[in-house]
Amino acid sequence: MDRNRLTMLTDFYEITMANGYFQNGLKDRITYFDMFFRRVPDGGGFAILAGIEQVIEYLQNLSFSDEDVAYLKSTRLFSDEFLAYLRDFRFTCDVWAIPEGTPVFPGEPILTVRGPAIQAQFIETMILLSINHQSLIATKANRIVRASQGRAVMEFGSRRAQGYDGAIYGARAAYIGGCAATACTICGSEMQIPVSGTMAHSWVQMFDSELEAFKAYAATYPNDCVLLVDTYDTLHSGVPNAIKAFDEVLAPLGCRPKGIRIDSGDITYLSRKARKMLDESGYSDCKIVASNSLDENIIRDMIMQGAQVDSFGVGERLITAASSPVFGGVYKLVAIENDGKIIPRIKISENVAKITNPCYKTPWRLFDKESDKAIADVITLHDEVIDESKPYLLFDPEHIWKRKLVTNFYAKRLQVPLFENGVCVYDRPSIEEIRRYCEEQLSTVWDEVKRFENPHKYYVDLSQMLWDEKQRMLCESSPAMDF
Amino acid sequence: MDRNRLTMLTDFYEITMANGYFQNGLKDRITYFDMFFRRVPDGGGFAILAGIEQVIEYLQNLSFSDEDVAYLKSTRLFSDEFLAYLRDFRFTCDVWAIPEGTPVFPGEPILTVRGPAIQAQFIETMILLSINHQSLIATKANRIVRASQGRAVMEFGSRRAQGYDGAIYGARAAYIGGCAATACTICGSEMQIPVSGTMAHSWVQMFDSELEAFKAYAATYPNDCVLLVDTYDTLHSGVPNAIKAFDEVLAPLGCRPKGIRIDSGDITYLSRKARKMLDESGYSDCKIVASNSLDENIIRDMIMQGAQVDSFGVGERLITAASSPVFGGVYKLVAIENDGKIIPRIKISENVAKITNPCYKTPWRLFDKESDKAIADVITLHDEVIDESKPYLLFDPEHIWKRKLVTNFYAKRLQVPLFENGVCVYDRPSIEEIRRYCEEQLSTVWDEVKRFENPHKYYVDLSQMLWDEKQRMLCESSPAMDF
Repeated sequence: MDRNRLTMLTDFYEITMANGYFQNGLKDRITYFDMFFRRVPDGGGFAILAGIEQVIEYLQNLSFSDEDVAYLKSTRLFSDEFLAYLRDFRFTCDVWAIPEGTPVFPGEPILTVRGPAIQAQFIETMILLSINHQSLIATKANRIVRASQGRAVMEFGSRRAQGYDGAIYGARAAYIGGCAATACTICGSEMQIPVSGTMAHSWVQMFDSELEAFKAYAATYPNDCVLLVDTYDTLHSGVPNAIKAFDEVLAPLGCRPKGIRIDSGDITYLSRKARKMLDESGYSDCKIVASNSLDENIIRDMIMQGAQVDSFGVGERLITAASSPVFGGVYKLVAIENDGKIIPRIKISENVAKITNPCYKTPWRLFDKESDKAIADVITLHDEVIDESKPYLLFDPEHIWKRKLVTNFYAKRLQVPLFENGVCVYDRPSIEEIRRYCEEQLSTVWDEVKRFENPHKYYVDLSQMLWDEKQRMLCESSPAMDF
Repeated sequence: MDRNRLTMLTDFYEITMANGYFQNGLKDRITYFDMFFRRVPDGGGFAILAGIEQVIEYLQNLSFSDEDVAYLKSTRLFSDEFLAYLRDFRFTCDVWAIPEGTPVFPGEPILTVRGPAIQAQFIETMILLSINHQSLIATKANRIVRASQGRAVMEFGSRRAQGYDGAIYGARAAYIGGCAATACTICGSEMQIPVSGTMAHSWVQMFDSELEAFKAYAATYPNDCVLLVDTYDTLHSGVPNAIKAFDEVLAPLGCRPKGIRIDSGDITYLSRKARKMLDESGYSDCKIVASNSLDENIIRDMIMQGAQVDSFGVGERLITAASSPVFGGVYKLVAIENDGKIIPRIKISENVAKITNPCYKTPWRLFDKESDKAIADVITLHDEVIDESKPYLLFDPEHIWKRKLVTNFYAKRLQVPLFENGVCVYDRPSIEEIRRYCEEQLSTVWDEVKRFENPHKYYVDLSQMLWDEKQRMLCESSPAMDF
């Protein structure tokens, strides 16, 4: 399998529908799709958006090979005319998205596509896959980074990731979310993400004694010496041997140790004892790294109980977002064009939370002029403009009697253009720029929204015009619904 | 990024250690590593092993490009001699593994590697990543398939997978675990896995009415017509319109409908009502497909409450194994060679469950001659032979007074050779063969072990010789441990 070819990584129904649109004369009907999500993982107050860069790469390379077409032909479901169309496929949609690293909220359009029905539909699977995955991990990483209160968090999870890309793009998302580095080497060589790593237990076991193993490592990496001290017995063997190796190998070279790592046992207890032993031996500059099934809750407890840990290596619970491993982004038809006129579409559901917001629209963020803090997001029709010079009336889309008049604010459109008529028009930021942007944008979010549990609900409101349109469609569409 | 090049998908410490072994004259020291896992996800009684095929592909392609070496050089951590060694790297290890599709149990060596320290260590990350991921999903899929009691389960999760490979190899693992098909098209075109899919809500929304949408689909796919009936109102609009489309479009063509799909609401209730409506309209052969955040628990409840569902489309909770999303396989040094003599290695831990089984060894499965059911697994030293003609004494490795004398049994070695001196010697089965093998092997597992909750604990025992050796090493290694 040529892993660079991802065109066929799509739900089969995208292709049966594409052929259906083709057969029914709808292939060039202009359609509008929104991607949005309904719930923040882990019950958090916001998500960190990531995965846009990979969507761009995918869209730039979208084409069907002869093998792809031959396979589809072999299913005997598709017309020859449709297969010929795929062979000449060229992506011509317009795409807008919120930039990576932005804190985003349930219900708002993260990404909007405008284009011919077949194309705009076909790209659903990969858009969702890329953004769902990376937003999940960036959001989880940011929780862990916040829990660590300024201590560095390193992503260590490749071996427990859900597939190769789970490791690679997971590490990328974790970096966007605030991790300081990853152990995943390919992220260094291919994506300019800082990489770190020292030794496993097998290094220690490879030698006839722990001390011998430590001395060999210190001699090999005198300026980069982090020793793993829990292979046999952390306090009675590991830490004393580490100190001996520092004394006997590093000191004569004039080098200082970088750290020790503790990977098992009660790390809070062990780190405090180890800190004392290191300090008493003149190594108060030697850092302590902790690893072993950590997450934001364990780290918060460790810090509360006085663990003497300078940085955290976080593996499986970060790279799989183990406590809440699904980011439920969806991609819904919101409008079609008929004779150049935009006609909104809505999906009704017996489950009220699953009713979609119709119309071609765009999300905005209102910021307080004095504090620069985000006040609320507002979704408007695409051609509405928010007038900053006048007070703006916010109202809760579900409980419309809840109203707030906002003054002294400025409004920013959240989406930027990615593609115009199939051509990428986006000046793609570097991974460092995305990470920095994320940090900046997070500073605009109130602490109340950042709480791990029961965060303050940040409002994503509909403009009056959009709300009116939605109500009209709901009334018209559901005469027969039972409640 | 060339996604076909995975050599650098490795924890950075594999490379720092490799350079360390190189610098310390240990690069050609023969080492033995075992991969095993400690806990079955979801508290189940066994796991389904998967991911071996991808390990083989990885090992066959393992080499360092000029770019890889240039990147490593840029870190200024590695010697030129070591970098030259990487440039000429050739994989020469022996590898054994249990075949894919086999039910496996905690503690037994799934895969064993023998070879030069640098090589055997370096491949750790990718071995764990491949096998952990696919075994996780195959195990979860099999739970869902068992809950479905013979009804087909289709894998629908690509959009919620953790990365592209999460979708692709996840679908592969789900098929091994018993799913009937996947929606992930690339698994059909590249891996010969059956693919299925029909329509999304957007198909229905694209037309001016639901009926029009259904009729267009039926006309396009008269022999493959499955209609999604919950876009507006399942019972008052979806099912009646589906029946009308069957009557008006399929009947005149002499075609029968394949099914309807319900994707929201109380599916147990809706499916019973829909079944009745279809039956009363002469469509008792029309199947009902259910989807929407299903897993083994929901499916078990639905069937218990009389849901009229013929097949299940299972998405996010399968493709991420959401209720238990980590398969914790580890890779541990178990022996080294010194002057041709094999010297066992052990990792002690303050956490008793983390103490490893030392020695170059191999796992066996004992089967009852009369029922062909699996009785227990036994791990022996690699050169031990289990004599089937004599009674075999099993004893619990933790509670050694628990003993059982087994008679009338046959013993099978579980591992097969994959690589000899770096050359693949394994006759790789097709995906269909793996899936069938999995089904056959599952029939040897007692129902008590297959229970979803509190399954009977299947024993994985150590041979007397291995147990004695482990005890000896434990006594020698831990004089200073506090209890």
